[in-house]
Amino acid sequence: MASNSFGKIFRITTWGESHGKAIGALIDGCPAGLGISEDDINQELSLRSPGKSDLTSPRKEPDIAEIMSGTFDGKTTGAPISIIIYNRDADSSKYEPIKDLLRPGHANFTYLEKYGIFDYRGGGRSSARETACRVAAGAIAKKLLEHFNIEVDAWVHSIAGEEEEPQMHSRVMEAKRCKDSVGGVIAFQVLGMPTALGDPVYEKLEANLAKAVMSIPATRGFEMGSGFEAAEQMGSEENDTFYLEEGRIRTETNHSGGTLGGISTGMPLLGKVAFKPTSSILKKQKSVDYKTLKSAIFKLPDGSRHDPCVVLRAAPVVKAMVSLVLADALLMNRGSKL
Amino acid sequence: MASNSFGKIFRITTWGESHGKAIGALIDGCPAGLGISEDDINQELSLRSPGKSDLTSPRKEPDIAEIMSGTFDGKTTGAPISIIIYNRDADSSKYEPIKDLLRPGHANFTYLEKYGIFDYRGGGRSSARETACRVAAGAIAKKLLEHFNIEVDAWVHSIAGEEEEPQMHSRVMEAKRCKDSVGGVIAFQVLGMPTALGDPVYEKLEANLAKAVMSIPATRGFEMGSGFEAAEQMGSEENDTFYLEEGRIRTETNHSGGTLGGISTGMPLLGKVAFKPTSSILKKQKSVDYKTLKSAIFKLPDGSRHDPCVVLRAAPVVKAMVSLVLADALLMNRGSKL
Amino acid sequence: MASNSFGKIFRITTWGESHGKAIGALIDGCPAGLGISEDDINQELSLRSPGKSDLTSPRKEPDIAEIMSGTFDGKTTGAPISIIIYNRDADSSKYEPIKDLLRPGHANFTYLEKYGIFDYRGGGRSSARETACRVAAGAIAKKLLEHFNIEVDAWVHSIAGEEEEPQMHSRVMEAKRCKDSVGGVIAFQVLGMPTALGDPVYEKLEANLAKAVMSIPATRGFEMGSGFEAAEQMGSEENDTFYLEEGRIRTETNHSGGTLGGISTGMPLLGKVAFKPTSSILKKQKSVDYKTLKSAIFKLPDGSRHDPCVVLRAAPVVKAMVSLVLADALLMNRGSKL
Amino acid sequence: MASNSFGKIFRITTWGESHGKAIGALIDGCPAGLGISEDDINQELSLRSPGKSDLTSPRKEPDIAEIMSGTFDGKTTGAPISIIIYNRDADSSKYEPIKDLLRPGHANFTYLEKYGIFDYRGGGRSSARETACRVAAGAIAKKLLEHFNIEVDAWVHSIAGEEEEPQMHSRVMEAKRCKDSVGGVIAFQVLGMPTALGDPVYEKLEANLAKAVMSIPATRGFEMGSGFEAAEQMGSEENDTFYLEEGRIRTETNHSGGTLGGISTGMPLLGKVAFKPTSSILKKQKSVDYKTLKSAIFKLPDGSRHDPCVVLRAAPVVKAMVSLVLADALLMNRGSKL
Repeated sequence: MASNSFGKIFRITTWGESHGKAIGALIDGCPAGLGISEDDINQELSLRSPGKSDLTSPRKEPDIAEIMSGTFDGKTTGAPISIIIYNRDADSSKYEPIKDLLRPGHANFTYLEKYGIFDYRGGGRSSARETACRVAAGAIAKKLLEHFNIEVDAWVHSIAGEEEEPQMHSRVMEAKRCKDSVGGVIAFQVLGMPTALGDPVYEKLEANLAKAVMSIPATRGFEMGSGFEAAEQMGSEENDTFYLEEGRIRTETNHSGGTLGGISTGMPLLGKVAFKPTSSILKKQKSVDYKTLKSAIFKLPDGSRHDPCVVLRAAPVVKAMVSLVLADALLMNRGSKL
Repeated sequence: MASNSFGKIFRITTWGESHGKAIGALIDGCPAGLGISEDDINQELSLRSPGKSDLTSPRKEPDIAEIMSGTFDGKTTGAPISIIIYNRDADSSKYEPIKDLLRPGHANFTYLEKYGIFDYRGGGRSSARETACRVAAGAIAKKLLEHFNIEVDAWVHSIAGEEEEPQMHSRVMEAKRCKDSVGGVIAFQVLGMPTALGDPVYEKLEANLAKAVMSIPATRGFEMGSGFEAAEQMGSEENDTFYLEEGRIRTETNHSGGTLGGISTGMPLLGKVAFKPTSSILKKQKSVDYKTLKSAIFKLPDGSRHDPCVVLRAAPVVKAMVSLVLADALLMNRGSKL
Repeated sequence: MASNSFGKIFRITTWGESHGKAIGALIDGCPAGLGISEDDINQELSLRSPGKSDLTSPRKEPDIAEIMSGTFDGKTTGAPISIIIYNRDADSSKYEPIKDLLRPGHANFTYLEKYGIFDYRGGGRSSARETACRVAAGAIAKKLLEHFNIEVDAWVHSIAGEEEEPQMHSRVMEAKRCKDSVGGVIAFQVLGMPTALGDPVYEKLEANLAKAVMSIPATRGFEMGSGFEAAEQMGSEENDTFYLEEGRIRTETNHSGGTLGGISTGMPLLGKVAFKPTSSILKKQKSVDYKTLKSAIFKLPDGSRHDPCVVLRAAPVVKAMVSLVLADALLMNRGSKL
Repeated sequence: MASNSFGKIFRITTWGESHGKAIGALIDGCPAGLGISEDDINQELSLRSPGKSDLTSPRKEPDIAEIMSGTFDGKTTGAPISIIIYNRDADSSKYEPIKDLLRPGHANFTYLEKYGIFDYRGGGRSSARETACRVAAGAIAKKLLEHFNIEVDAWVHSIAGEEEEPQMHSRVMEAKRCKDSVGGVIAFQVLGMPTALGDPVYEKLEANLAKAVMSIPATRGFEMGSGFEAAEQMGSEENDTFYLEEGRIRTETNHSGGTLGGISTGMPLLGKVAFKPTSSILKKQKSVDYKTLKSAIFKLPDGSRHDPCVVLRAAPVVKAMVSLVLADALLMNRGSKL
C-alpha cells in the first residue's frame, strides 16, 4: 500500500533511504504564487541537524535541499515541488556483521516480516533521517501559513521528566556517559489561528494532528490542550466558557487546545508529543538472529554514532508536521461554503 | 471537504444528525464471503446504549440497525453494506430558546463559523449520537478480524483519576448530584495480532490508531504502550528486547504497545485514550449570543437529559475505531509482497 | 477495494442492489448553504424512469428519493446528504431457474470470478438500476452548478447509427419486434463554463469526464470535442485559434471540446459517449453453466421485461456524471491560487 | 489540488518541467521483492525518444533514468522508488519574445487563468516531456505484470485515417513539408489477462483505462473493444457468448474488449486512443496577447523543433498508462475475498 504520502489537498510524498544516494520530498497541491527559496528550506533543516552540540550525534552532515521543480521566478506555479537532499556522510560497512540481528526498539524485525527484505545498512525508511524530508516539506507549508499570519512553534518541554534546562542537560549527559538514552516531551503552539479550520467527524483537526505527530519515529503519545489531565477534571472546570473581547468571540480558558468538534476556535492550538528514549544505545542487549532463529547479543559496532536524546532534534519535526496539517486544513476549508 | 469517511480499502462513511430521521453507516471494501447479520451489529450497539444504568443518560432509545444492502444469503458479496439506524426518541423543541447561545465545550460555535448554518436541535454531526454509526461499522470490522482470530477489547481504565470500581462509581454519582460531569480514560488491547500490519512512515499503525480515536468526540489524548511514561525512562529500560518462544520471535516486554516502525510485532496492541468530562452540564455557564454578539448565560433547559460521564459509553466506540483501523491494515498488507 | 465512491472534494458513494430493499446515494463534501429539496432530485429521477413510452421497459416503478440527512431549513449544512430510494417492483423468483447460467454481455461471470458469490436475483451492483443513484446525486451537483450559472445538458445523439428521430424510433421498434436490441450515442454539452476548471496531468477535466462516463454500464467509448475525427485532421485545421470578443478571450472553433491541457477554456464543454445495445435480449443465446461447467442455452424467462434500447434512458445518467465531475472540479479549483 | 498522482495502491506521482533541471517519477506501493534495474526503465524510455527517425522532432536527448531509492540488491523493498531523469538539451531563450502570446492548441492560456503564472520556457507540466515520467513509472508496472505473465502492447493503428504503413509515412512527410501536423490512433492489447481485475461501479477497469489514457496530452477519444461501432450493432451481434475451451470459460467474440461490468473476463483487453494532430506547427496562426489583450499573430521562432506527428511517440506512453492501471487493479483485487 502506498504509505509515503501525507495530506489531501496540500499533499507530500517523501522517499529515500538513510544510506542511499539521496532523500527527497515532493509537495503537490501547493497554491500558485507563493514565494519560496532553497534558503527557506535549509534554514528549517539546520534546526534539526545533528552535530550541533555535545548532546547530539556527531554525524556532521549539513543537509542541503535543492528545489528541482515547481517554481518560476521564485514563486510556486501550482506544479509539484520536488526537493532533493543528497546523502553524504554514510558509512554502512560496519553494519554488515550485525545485519541479521534484530535491533531492540528498531524496525528491522517488522520490515522483514512485512516485506521479506530489509536494507540493513541504515534503517531504510524507518530511519530518523526520513524526518529531514518532513522538515523540508514543512518549510513550504510554513511559508503558506505565514502568508495567512499563522505561526507554528514547537520546543522541548521536558526531558526524562525534567522541565528545567540544567536538569534536562544533566540527564542527557548522564545518559551519554552510561551509553544509554533518555526520552522527553515536545510541546507545540500555533498562534494567529483563524476559526473554521478542521473538519467534522473523521477529519477533525486534532485527529489529523494526532496522526501527523504519531507518524514521527519514536513517538508514544499525543495530547491536545489539557490532555490526559482533562480526564481527571470536572466539566465545570474543563469547559472553556465564551466571552467577548473587542467584539470577537473568545474562550476564557483554552483547555480544549483550540478546537471544538474538530474545528478551530481561533484560540491558539496547543499540544504535546511524548518521545521514547532513543532505541540505539551502546549497551549490549538481548536479541535474536532472524536468519538462524537463535538467541544472540546485539551490540552496536564500536565507534557507532550515538544520539542519547532524539528529543533535542524532534522539535522542528513536530513543527513541520503541525504545519503540514494546517496548510492542508486551510485549503480543505475553502470548500465549506458556497 | 468530504470528511465523513474513514479507512482506505475497508472504508466507512457515516451520515445523519442526532435529531434527523435516521443515522447510518456505509461500509465499502469489505471482502466477499464474510458472514454477518443484524444481530452482530445490534449486539455491539447495545453496549453503547444510554439508559442502561443509573450512571448514564435516561434517553431510552434502543438502537436497532437494519442492513439495507451488501449481503446475500447472510454473507457479504463485496458490495457496499448500508446500515440504517432510525432515530426515535428525539424531542428538539426545548432547544429552540437557546439556539443562538454558544454552548461551552460544544461545537455550535465552530460549525457556525465554518458553515454559516447549524442544526441547533441536537448537535448535528457533532453529536455523540454519531458514534452509534462507528459502532455499527466497527461490528463488521470485528467480524472480519474474528475470521483471522484477532480480538479487540476496550474498557474503562479510570474515571476522574480513580482506577477502582467503587471510587469510579462514587465520582460519577457525585458529579450527577452536583449537576456536573467527570472524564476518564479508556484502555484497549488487541490479542491475536499477526506481524506485518501497518505501513511505514505516514500510515504507521499507531498513527492511524491515534487519528481513529482522536476523531471520537471529547477525546484529549492518546497513548501507545508505555505512552507519556516512556518519555521519563532510559532506553535500556524502555527497549523491548527480543527472545524466542517455541521458535517464535517475541519481545520480553511490550512497552511499544505492539508496533515497531509503525508495523505490528505480533505482540498485543496496547493503548489508552483520554476523554474530557461531558461538556453538557446542568449548571449555569457564561456564554455569548452568536446572533446579537452579547454576553449571555447558558443553561440547559429543565429536564434535559444529562450524562455525567461519557466515558462509560465510550469503550465500545474505542473498540470500534480500533477494529476499523485493523480491518483496513489487514487488507492494505495484502499488497506488501509479490 | 472500496469502489463505490466518485469524486474527491464533492464525493458520492452509492449502494444497494436492484432487488434489495433500497438503493441510495451519499453525498459528502457539498458546501453549506445550497438550497435543495426532494423535488429537485425526483424531477431528475423521473427523466430516467422506465415505462415512459412504448420504447422502454414496462417496469412501472416511480423512483422516489427521500433525503435522510444533511439539510436544515431547506439548505445544505455541510453534513453528508443521504438519499434513499426504496425498491418496489422487484420480482426475482423467475431468475431462480437460470441462476447458474452465464448471461451474455452481463457481469454475473466476472462477479462470480471476483467475489465467489453473486446475487443472481437482479444483477446486484452491476444492474442499471444503480444509475438511479447517480442521477439522484447528480441532481445535487446540478444545483451547485446552477448557483454558478453552469448548465449541463445531455441528449440522444444517435441510435443504431441513425441521427434523425423517425429513423431512430423505427430502429428501436424493429429491435423490439425481433426480441433484439440496439445501441446508440449520447452527446453532452456544458454552457456557462468558467475558465480554470480541471487540473493538470492526471486530473485533467477530460480524463475525469472519461472515467465518469465510462463507469456507466454499457458504455464503449468516449470522445471529447472532435474526438476520433481529430485523428484524421491537420493541425492547422484542428487548432482552435484565439480571438477577442468584447474583451474576452475565446476560440474561433471548439474542436478541443472546451479544454486545453486538461483545464477549461471557458468555451462550452462538448463530448459524446457510445453505448452498446442492451445485453438483455429475448433471443436464445449460447452460454455455459458456471456450476456444472457445461455448455448451455441462455434464455430469459417468458414475460421478462425488455428494454430494447438503454440509450433512451441514458442521457440523464450522462448528465449526472458530467455534473458530478464539474462540481468536484469547481471545488478543487479553490486551492489553485493563494 | 494535488493532481500529479495516479493509482490507488500502486501509486505514482510525477514532477518536473520540460525546461527545468530534471523530471521525475515516484512510485509508492510497489510490492517488495520485484527485480528491477535502470536498464528496464531506460529500454522503455528509448522507445519514446525523439530524434529516432526523419519523422520525429530532432531533439537529441537520450533520456537516462536514475533510480534514487526503493531497491536493495536489485530488488524492490516496499519503499518508494524515486526515479530522476535530468534534462539536458533545453534551450528556452528563443521563447522569450513570444511569452505573452497564447499558443493555439496549447495550455498556456488555461494555466495562466488557473494559476496566474506560467513557465513560458517550455510548457511546464503541460509539456509532452512529462510523458517520459509515465513511461519510466510504467516500466516498473510492466515488470510487476510480467511477474504475473501479463503482457501489455501498444502500437500505431492509423495516422491521418490511413492504416497502411506507406500511406502513414507519406502523410507524415507531407505534413512536415507543409509545416503542418497530423493526428492518429494508438491501439493497445493486453494478453495473459486473469479474470477478476477491475472493480464494480466507479472503479471499472475500462473507466480507469479511459481516465489513464485521456490524461495523456493531445488525446481526444477512447474506445474499449468494439467502441463507437457497438452503438450501431444489434444486441444479438454484439453480445459475446460464452463457451468452454479445455474446461475454461471464454467468449466466442470479444466485442467488450475484455471486461464485463468493469471486471476482466480473462479475454485480451482491447482498446484504442485518438490523438489530435500536434498543436505546435510552423505556420502562422491567429492569436491574442494575454498581457495587452490585443489580437496578435503567433509564430514559432525560426529553427524551432517540430514534431509533425506525436502519435509516433505515443505508443509507449499508452502502454505505460495501461500497465499502471493493471498493476493497480492487480493489487486492488487482493482484497476482494476473505
